[in-house]
Amino acid sequence: MSGNSPTLQNLTNMADVWDAYREELNEVELQVHKNLNSEASLINTISSQIMASGGKRIRPLLLILSAKLCGFIQREYLLLGSLIEYIHTATLLHDDVLDEADIRRGEKTARRIWGNHASILVGDYLYSQAMTQIASFHNHGFNESLADACRKMTEGEVLQLCANSRPEITEPEYLQIVEYKTATLVAASCKIGAAIGEGTPAEQAALSRFGLNLGMAFQLTDDCLDYLADGARLGKTLGKDIRQGMVTLPLLHLFQTCEDDQRQWIKSKVQSRAITDEDLTTIISLMHEHHSLTYATQRAEEYVKAASLDLEPFADGMAKRSLAIVSQYMVNRDQ
Amino acid sequence: MSGNSPTLQNLTNMADVWDAYREELNEVELQVHKNLNSEASLINTISSQIMASGGKRIRPLLLILSAKLCGFIQREYLLLGSLIEYIHTATLLHDDVLDEADIRRGEKTARRIWGNHASILVGDYLYSQAMTQIASFHNHGFNESLADACRKMTEGEVLQLCANSRPEITEPEYLQIVEYKTATLVAASCKIGAAIGEGTPAEQAALSRFGLNLGMAFQLTDDCLDYLADGARLGKTLGKDIRQGMVTLPLLHLFQTCEDDQRQWIKSKVQSRAITDEDLTTIISLMHEHHSLTYATQRAEEYVKAASLDLEPFADGMAKRSLAIVSQYMVNRDQ
Repeated sequence: MSGNSPTLQNLTNMADVWDAYREELNEVELQVHKNLNSEASLINTISSQIMASGGKRIRPLLLILSAKLCGFIQREYLLLGSLIEYIHTATLLHDDVLDEADIRRGEKTARRIWGNHASILVGDYLYSQAMTQIASFHNHGFNESLADACRKMTEGEVLQLCANSRPEITEPEYLQIVEYKTATLVAASCKIGAAIGEGTPAEQAALSRFGLNLGMAFQLTDDCLDYLADGARLGKTLGKDIRQGMVTLPLLHLFQTCEDDQRQWIKSKVQSRAITDEDLTTIISLMHEHHSLTYATQRAEEYVKAASLDLEPFADGMAKRSLAIVSQYMVNRDQ
Repeated sequence: MSGNSPTLQNLTNMADVWDAYREELNEVELQVHKNLNSEASLINTISSQIMASGGKRIRPLLLILSAKLCGFIQREYLLLGSLIEYIHTATLLHDDVLDEADIRRGEKTARRIWGNHASILVGDYLYSQAMTQIASFHNHGFNESLADACRKMTEGEVLQLCANSRPEITEPEYLQIVEYKTATLVAASCKIGAAIGEGTPAEQAALSRFGLNLGMAFQLTDDCLDYLADGARLGKTLGKDIRQGMVTLPLLHLFQTCEDDQRQWIKSKVQSRAITDEDLTTIISLMHEHHSLTYATQRAEEYVKAASLDLEPFADGMAKRSLAIVSQYMVNRDQ
């Protein structure tokens, strides 16, 4: 594909990317729903509803783009995009139980409608259905990438559980949690995509790194949005992380830069999990004063920059341009 | 191995079987603990404790015996026995959260000590660690057998969740739940064992059926023990199933045979989940009167008989004799 292809020239934002790969994404969507065919109809009901509840399919998109960047993607391999979305959804179902969350993406959570039992079990089902279906490809690389990502995601969740209400966590410790909890599945999406596209080992490694950097940027941006988000738009509540005892990058920066007595006060609030709206307003003001959100945003942008370096060796074209647009979108989701 | 080997002649009960395969089982045990090497130390702590808490390793034993029945088992493949034990343990961790159980095998449950969060996540970890490690064998048969068993187990759990407090469940529906929830992992243990021993496809299929029948017998015996168990010996509480709204085979039989008003009374009790010790005594008396426990025990014995037929084509020897002893043990665990 040449640089002056009209399609390439018209590719400027996320809407263009979604449009350009609509056919492949529709096939992913078809596979997502086609394989929710359990003999237990409750599984299909819950899975279908949660799978239809507005997930953006960023991971399947990255899989498709990575495959195309290295070569091409045959229709049968688009199923893999849906399996990664199953894994992602399984983690959301379990997370909502762990966080006792009532709302996700502006809708009632599955656990709120069907209860914790059903949410845990349907999460388990989506996970095992993904592992069953990926095994049917008889491709060791696929199996290993997905299983390894799942293991690291769980480790990340446990590391985070241990870090909760423990404000003395260091930035490297925090970044490891982000890598395991969020970035590994994004990396696996890109790596599996590169393997589908029959990329060389070096290309697969480059796209895996690209995905890892992108995943880091995604999570750090999410951390900032938790202190900035417009609840109506993102279906999130301001300060959800800190209210759950989660210390994320903006807060870690604030701890490094604020006065001792302020730090002690915030730490005691985090540990007690008794944060009023007034406390939150004070903490957010301190973050602005100390440029903590700017710091975390800059770190996210550095990861996006690193991701763009991972793409450099690849030839320009639709897929590369699209990946660059997705990268920018990762750090500009509220705009 | 010949029928008149002295070792074979001395093989008469479960203790002899455990002794005969002590070396292999010790290696399984070593692998169980060696691979609990997460970077999240809480995972290792919880996993180690629950893995050390008195599980009998029946499934690894069946894997070893199935491999030896078909041929032999190399040391490196004993790891697979530990992975099946990880999966089994993962289901126990999640079950205990779902059942709000405080005691298992006479000890406090993980969720009671470390909380529901940690129990769900460590369950997820054991599951994904098993899938990661099995993928490293690069054997599609292993991957597919284990992933398929996991998927069916989850479906069985959901079918059971839907059946809970629904006394109109039929016997075939109930047996499907038992097959999915319990028997498939036993079948997978035997099938993977047969594949390790390089059994023919027919031998692998025979051992898979053997495991399925054995798993059915195991669960139906468990159902009866719930109305018979000596709490001190088995670390179980009498009538745990019915108190949780679970209708198992003895109760299904009672519904078929008792008077209409008795059935209505029991059904209302099951649905309300308000079963006093006095109610339970009445229900158990009715079961004895209507031979419901005898019926369920006979069904379990039929499955053991079917399992023994699955073994018929195999040559006699230590492994076959041991599998026969394990089969009998499955329906005589309280003796």
